[in-house]
Amino acid sequence: MVYPGSLEKLISFYKKLPTIGEKSAERLALATLDLDDEEVSEFSQNLLVAKQKLHPCQICNNLTDQDICPICSDENRDHNLICVIEDYKSVFSFEKAGNYKGVYHVLNGLISPINNVGPDDIAIASLVKRVEALEKPELILALKSSIEGETTTLYIKKKFEKKDVTISRLSYGLPMGAEIEYLDVLTLDKALEDRKKIA
Amino acid sequence: MVYPGSLEKLISFYKKLPTIGEKSAERLALATLDLDDEEVSEFSQNLLVAKQKLHPCQICNNLTDQDICPICSDENRDHNLICVIEDYKSVFSFEKAGNYKGVYHVLNGLISPINNVGPDDIAIASLVKRVEALEKPELILALKSSIEGETTTLYIKKKFEKKDVTISRLSYGLPMGAEIEYLDVLTLDKALEDRKKIA
Repeated sequence: MVYPGSLEKLISFYKKLPTIGEKSAERLALATLDLDDEEVSEFSQNLLVAKQKLHPCQICNNLTDQDICPICSDENRDHNLICVIEDYKSVFSFEKAGNYKGVYHVLNGLISPINNVGPDDIAIASLVKRVEALEKPELILALKSSIEGETTTLYIKKKFEKKDVTISRLSYGLPMGAEIEYLDVLTLDKALEDRKKIA
Repeated sequence: MVYPGSLEKLISFYKKLPTIGEKSAERLALATLDLDDEEVSEFSQNLLVAKQKLHPCQICNNLTDQDICPICSDENRDHNLICVIEDYKSVFSFEKAGNYKGVYHVLNGLISPINNVGPDDIAIASLVKRVEALEKPELILALKSSIEGETTTLYIKKKFEKKDVTISRLSYGLPMGAEIEYLDVLTLDKALEDRKKIA
């Protein structure tokens, strides 16, 4: 009963967000009250708009406020090159890096028998359909190096076995700038195994 | 142009909050989209309600959704004991600590000639009025140990010079559990100067 009711409610919302604990939630809620009425009511409005307007792209599942996302409708991109990713958040990472000129396919999950997620629960059927419509398809599997990621990678590879599709996966190794002494053993092992001849 | 417009707007709101940078704002905005429609629309509503309903208590300036805050209307508290603080956020800190049984007076600022804030810009007149209505008033000045805090403390002390008011300020010294080796010199000097005889 330290906070007035309506402030308490703001705090409990902020607490639902990742990495926001009790203390931070209080700080954010109090800071929210310090903002202009206008800023807050605009945010209040935007929250609803964002939740209503954002939905998966009809082609690639990427988050968009249009029917077809700007990436899928961009004619300057290579539509034969599809980067397969777990969720739309990865699209933003690739786009920020800015060097990828193909398109995406968002799976919305990874195959995980332990969590009862099978191939039919993620967007693999639509990927197959997309690939079949292409002349010279190439897939880049950009899935994380976990059991689920590996399983999904293997499944997709098998799915296109008898078709003429180039498939690659992201390279594993040292993150750029990483201190080798702090690196986990699995990554170090992988980096050693996948070492690249330079001379 | 990496994010859809309505997502970009959520990100820019979160960026206005303290300690939230670009990366965190993105993370929070994406996490907001992951929440249920219901949770988001409730938050959207609460934002407006909180901004509209919360206002200063008519007696002490504490933030409240009533005319008189629950602390000022609590008959079990000692209304002769007034803790003078800079802003309402300190009320929450004291209330969480839970040992203070008096009431508060929120100044809404500190005297700061450099920022053009004089005694008339903060709630000192209303403090004087409150104190004059009391039989055996006691003030605890809980202001920060900055130039502004000291100036305000001195001003209030002077204001009540000719009146029968007990005035104290919070003690300065080591924070509980602090490592002495990491302590700033000013605090250490103060802790030495104000040392307490124990035998």
